[in-house]
Amino acid sequence: MSSSRNVKPPVFNSLTGAIRALAMDAVQKANSGHPGAPMGMAEIAEVLWRRHLRHNPANPQWADRDRFVQSNGHGSMLIYALLHLTGYDLSIDDLKNFRQLHSRTPGHPEVGYTPGVETTTGPLGQGITNAVGMALAEKILAADFNRPGHEIVNHNTYVFLGDGCLMEGISHEACSLAGTWGLGKLIAFYDDNNISIDGHVEGWFTDDTPKRFEAYGWHVVRDVQGHDPEAIEAALAAARAETGRPSLICCKTIIGAGAPNKQDSHDVHGAPLGAAEIEATRAHIGWNHPAFEIPADVYAAWDARAKGAAAEAEWRSRFAAYATAFPELAAEFTRRMAGELPADWAAHVDAVLAKVTDKGETIATRKASQNSIEAFAPKLPELLGGSADLAGSNLTLWSGAKGVSKTSGGNYVYYGVREFGMAAIANGVALHGGLIPYTATFLMFSEYARNALRMAALMKLRQIFVFTHDSIGLGEDGPTHQPVEQTATLRLIPNMDVWRPCDTAESAVAWASAIERKAGPTSLAFSRQNLPFQARSTAQLADIRRGGYVLSEAGTASQPVHPQAVIIATGSEVALAMAAQQQLAEAGIAVRVVSMPSTNVFDRQDAEYRASVLPKGLPRVAVEAGVTDGWRKYVGLEGEVIGLDRFGESAPAGELFKYFGITAEAVAAAVKKVIA
Amino acid sequence: MSSSRNVKPPVFNSLTGAIRALAMDAVQKANSGHPGAPMGMAEIAEVLWRRHLRHNPANPQWADRDRFVQSNGHGSMLIYALLHLTGYDLSIDDLKNFRQLHSRTPGHPEVGYTPGVETTTGPLGQGITNAVGMALAEKILAADFNRPGHEIVNHNTYVFLGDGCLMEGISHEACSLAGTWGLGKLIAFYDDNNISIDGHVEGWFTDDTPKRFEAYGWHVVRDVQGHDPEAIEAALAAARAETGRPSLICCKTIIGAGAPNKQDSHDVHGAPLGAAEIEATRAHIGWNHPAFEIPADVYAAWDARAKGAAAEAEWRSRFAAYATAFPELAAEFTRRMAGELPADWAAHVDAVLAKVTDKGETIATRKASQNSIEAFAPKLPELLGGSADLAGSNLTLWSGAKGVSKTSGGNYVYYGVREFGMAAIANGVALHGGLIPYTATFLMFSEYARNALRMAALMKLRQIFVFTHDSIGLGEDGPTHQPVEQTATLRLIPNMDVWRPCDTAESAVAWASAIERKAGPTSLAFSRQNLPFQARSTAQLADIRRGGYVLSEAGTASQPVHPQAVIIATGSEVALAMAAQQQLAEAGIAVRVVSMPSTNVFDRQDAEYRASVLPKGLPRVAVEAGVTDGWRKYVGLEGEVIGLDRFGESAPAGELFKYFGITAEAVAAAVKKVIA
Repeated sequence: MSSSRNVKPPVFNSLTGAIRALAMDAVQKANSGHPGAPMGMAEIAEVLWRRHLRHNPANPQWADRDRFVQSNGHGSMLIYALLHLTGYDLSIDDLKNFRQLHSRTPGHPEVGYTPGVETTTGPLGQGITNAVGMALAEKILAADFNRPGHEIVNHNTYVFLGDGCLMEGISHEACSLAGTWGLGKLIAFYDDNNISIDGHVEGWFTDDTPKRFEAYGWHVVRDVQGHDPEAIEAALAAARAETGRPSLICCKTIIGAGAPNKQDSHDVHGAPLGAAEIEATRAHIGWNHPAFEIPADVYAAWDARAKGAAAEAEWRSRFAAYATAFPELAAEFTRRMAGELPADWAAHVDAVLAKVTDKGETIATRKASQNSIEAFAPKLPELLGGSADLAGSNLTLWSGAKGVSKTSGGNYVYYGVREFGMAAIANGVALHGGLIPYTATFLMFSEYARNALRMAALMKLRQIFVFTHDSIGLGEDGPTHQPVEQTATLRLIPNMDVWRPCDTAESAVAWASAIERKAGPTSLAFSRQNLPFQARSTAQLADIRRGGYVLSEAGTASQPVHPQAVIIATGSEVALAMAAQQQLAEAGIAVRVVSMPSTNVFDRQDAEYRASVLPKGLPRVAVEAGVTDGWRKYVGLEGEVIGLDRFGESAPAGELFKYFGITAEAVAAAVKKVIA
Repeated sequence: MSSSRNVKPPVFNSLTGAIRALAMDAVQKANSGHPGAPMGMAEIAEVLWRRHLRHNPANPQWADRDRFVQSNGHGSMLIYALLHLTGYDLSIDDLKNFRQLHSRTPGHPEVGYTPGVETTTGPLGQGITNAVGMALAEKILAADFNRPGHEIVNHNTYVFLGDGCLMEGISHEACSLAGTWGLGKLIAFYDDNNISIDGHVEGWFTDDTPKRFEAYGWHVVRDVQGHDPEAIEAALAAARAETGRPSLICCKTIIGAGAPNKQDSHDVHGAPLGAAEIEATRAHIGWNHPAFEIPADVYAAWDARAKGAAAEAEWRSRFAAYATAFPELAAEFTRRMAGELPADWAAHVDAVLAKVTDKGETIATRKASQNSIEAFAPKLPELLGGSADLAGSNLTLWSGAKGVSKTSGGNYVYYGVREFGMAAIANGVALHGGLIPYTATFLMFSEYARNALRMAALMKLRQIFVFTHDSIGLGEDGPTHQPVEQTATLRLIPNMDVWRPCDTAESAVAWASAIERKAGPTSLAFSRQNLPFQARSTAQLADIRRGGYVLSEAGTASQPVHPQAVIIATGSEVALAMAAQQQLAEAGIAVRVVSMPSTNVFDRQDAEYRASVLPKGLPRVAVEAGVTDGWRKYVGLEGEVIGLDRFGESAPAGELFKYFGITAEAVAAAVKKVIA
């Protein structure tokens, strides 16, 4: 019980009353939602949002605004109430439509749906991690752009989080890094209400959280009375005064505070209070207004528009002075925050591709990836690289890479062995703007980061995931490290583009496509082992961007013949397909080879193009060193798929391909079968 | 550098020399592998394995043996050397075949390949988490079976782990729970060598790890000289004396200790030392024997067979006394450790199914799942339930559930919001034996646990994953919580059985199949919303176990007609398929409805059965509220799939099905299209 925890209950007033009423009434109307967190954090929200948050409701995209993340996203009515009350373009009708189809107030905060929502939260632990990424971006951009007397990048990142976020493992990864990086402008409020869905947390959450965060190098403000505005104010002042370490403000609160019969129990966490308790709450907190009615004086007290407009105007005037002093830097800042590529980008890509084609190197595609980074990164100071402790294996470093540290910015992040944290931090970086993150690990360990990849796709973020060691071709490390189903499952994430290039040219195109893609993330799967360069015409080179194309027609370039079948291949298996084509030609069988580095991109091409690559009625064989089911979409019930529907083994790679029957001979035999 | 860390270098001797030599020589011969950890942990291993580990090399399955987990699995030559030296059935030729196809010494330790390997490690952080599960199982079984004067379950779980494991988020989840549960017999050795793959860890790993673990309630032994046997001995004694808390022994070590030029750098982490450094190491450590030759006196000093046989014999004699005093308990212990179900299990399942069929309830399948647990669990005291803080939503509690706590055993675990930790702890429980774990979260958050699910499949564990809220049918919580691609991607994990039942009968069969499956895990996907009961004949009821079956033939039961098409459906969409069948019948179109609760199980049926359900040439339509690609395997290029290839939305469930066009009308229209 709260009494044993010595939590002082709130002194109710109309400012926090408005939050409590909007939250309980919207949840009640939707007959669905979570009133507990908004009601329990009303005082914290009032202190932060009315007194400190530097934001302009009229321009949620103002570059130097403070970022606010509600990591306990289930309590979405809190941020919706705050956005509405402070004057964002979110009407009382929007609140009445809470959790309804096409509303601007979905069940969890969704970036892009609601002005002022900085990130999509709900999957616990990822909000705080996004916030670490935002604060990291701020630190890096400040180092890139600020000049003496010109602090054009200087804002805080504030986070609300609860017990759930702190139990999740990703909070360890993100908060450990935030400490290492000394992110002094990151300030988190811990809603310590002692309740999670299963009840009072003593049975499953006994961490000494302040001590844990001190072990990460955070500045911790302990034992703050979370319903006492002056205690919150003092803690926040201490946090803002501490610039060398992130701050955790531990607020003791009562979940659902204000609901006289249900507060301080999990009953108030995720269900409407019900009409009777709502009536009792109105009386208890002294809120005598009908549902969704806010008195004008309360609106006036919350209204942040004038203050916000002034704050942005002041920044704009400082930015104008900066632009006068540093016109090139100012233009570059504007370009990068807008997410525009340099004007000569397309020409640069063409030049890179021409050089790659000329060289025609036989190297691992992870090395081709590194060469691509080396070629593109000098043009793109916004590229922020990184790897989860596999820089030398993923080959993500380049000659201009400079590591971010506690005392400096940079363009490369040593994330340590923290795949999930890395991906979700990079989501935060992408959300912040001004940087394009690429991160890396072994393809297998994309699984550790799986839900952050999905969140990148859901939030339509420009994010690049480099996944090397993409099949049994990695050899001796064995089945725990050998991807089998990973490429196939990544392809199934809506709005995720997946590329598995077969050589240096496809690798460069995949990188360019990923960089250019503004509305979603890209996963790049690269080989550990060397792959031969494939010769292409100019037209073929251009067609790589279509995701799938005829790499080698039946017959010869000068005398093409009508193919009897098509072999579709990706990545390391393209060379097998080419060898099978040769073997079959010698047996008098004419086949076309289609390279399909990105099924997702190919599927977006028009029907005519797709049919030109995969003509109707032509028997098909697909080959990829992974699970086979996904290829039925292209080969149908009558086609054949050469792949691997079991786990790998530890052995040298060459032996494994033979052992598992992923060979040119097997592909040729499959072609003979489908044309029989 | 080690000097600044005040690490005392080893005093080399032939006992640790054997480990260092075997590790470096096997890695060199394989031309692949990780010598650094085995060489750096040789003294720790010697103290634990020669002086304390209670095990019998002749019987790696002895129920009361100490468990040993090498969580830093890349250093696999350490455990292989230890198993060989102490007398397990692992020959010097096996070591020479390190990392070769079909060897017993794969690149990472793989359970089932090597006698004495307790779990498969390599994916960092999961080994320590499995160990937490093993120690939890020991605690629960001790409570279940020990009686005053009869401690038949009483063993330690020992873990080796490195910086990588401690950076991973899952270590937070698992170690927090280990502290909460007071797992006093869990003892972990932290190989604090200050090096990870990217180099010296100061740039990315600055945690105060001892303080962090104290915050979890662990007993921490700080600053142990990891190359000093007496310091290790003293720390281990302190750890064994502490019975109320798990212990972390922080050992300062030098990675690759003994390699005079490469030690204390990441060069020694994951690559062969090379001939020259190996020669220099031999001289430096005073090991003058050729590769893979161990002197007889060294073998004799390591040999644990006599001591192990005596230890097991002593336990067997105590177990005999226990069996005399408590014959039923002893028989039950033997049954459970053997993984056998009770003798009357099959009859019980039949009775449960008959009752479920009689009732014919229209309820959510998550509720049907709870009813199944309620029906089966009283027969199966080995069932260990749990949920990641969603007991009331997953419906995993039953009337006999008793929560595990610091001071008691039980049959239900409150895991808190820790999906990955939960799944990997359950893997450890399953590996330990004597318990069958089932765990639960929302289907979406299977993604947080993704690699642990894969590890369960790879290790062939009897493990049951309950995933509720299995589609847009969960409604208002929106796209962060609505599975779209999750069922499809789970089906692609080799050796994972996935069930998505349509009603109470299929739910009960899915549960029974999962319980009976000994060689792999099962994922059960259940709905939040109510689903109607489907009538079945006795034969149809029996065919549920085949994964897919004809639920409703065209025409009527008494007058079946030849169908013009087949509709395949799963879970909540079976009712839509039935409604479409009805609509089509009214339009004079005869279709068959196939319910396919488990594609994986259906795919294992013989060709004749599969063809009887899905006759060749009959046009097919599939319907499932998720991504469509996987269904091409069943409907081919010419069939139709009704599904969802984009993210969901926040709205009431009924509206969403209409909005996304997953309706009986859409299914009927698709049938008309495929038969046109």
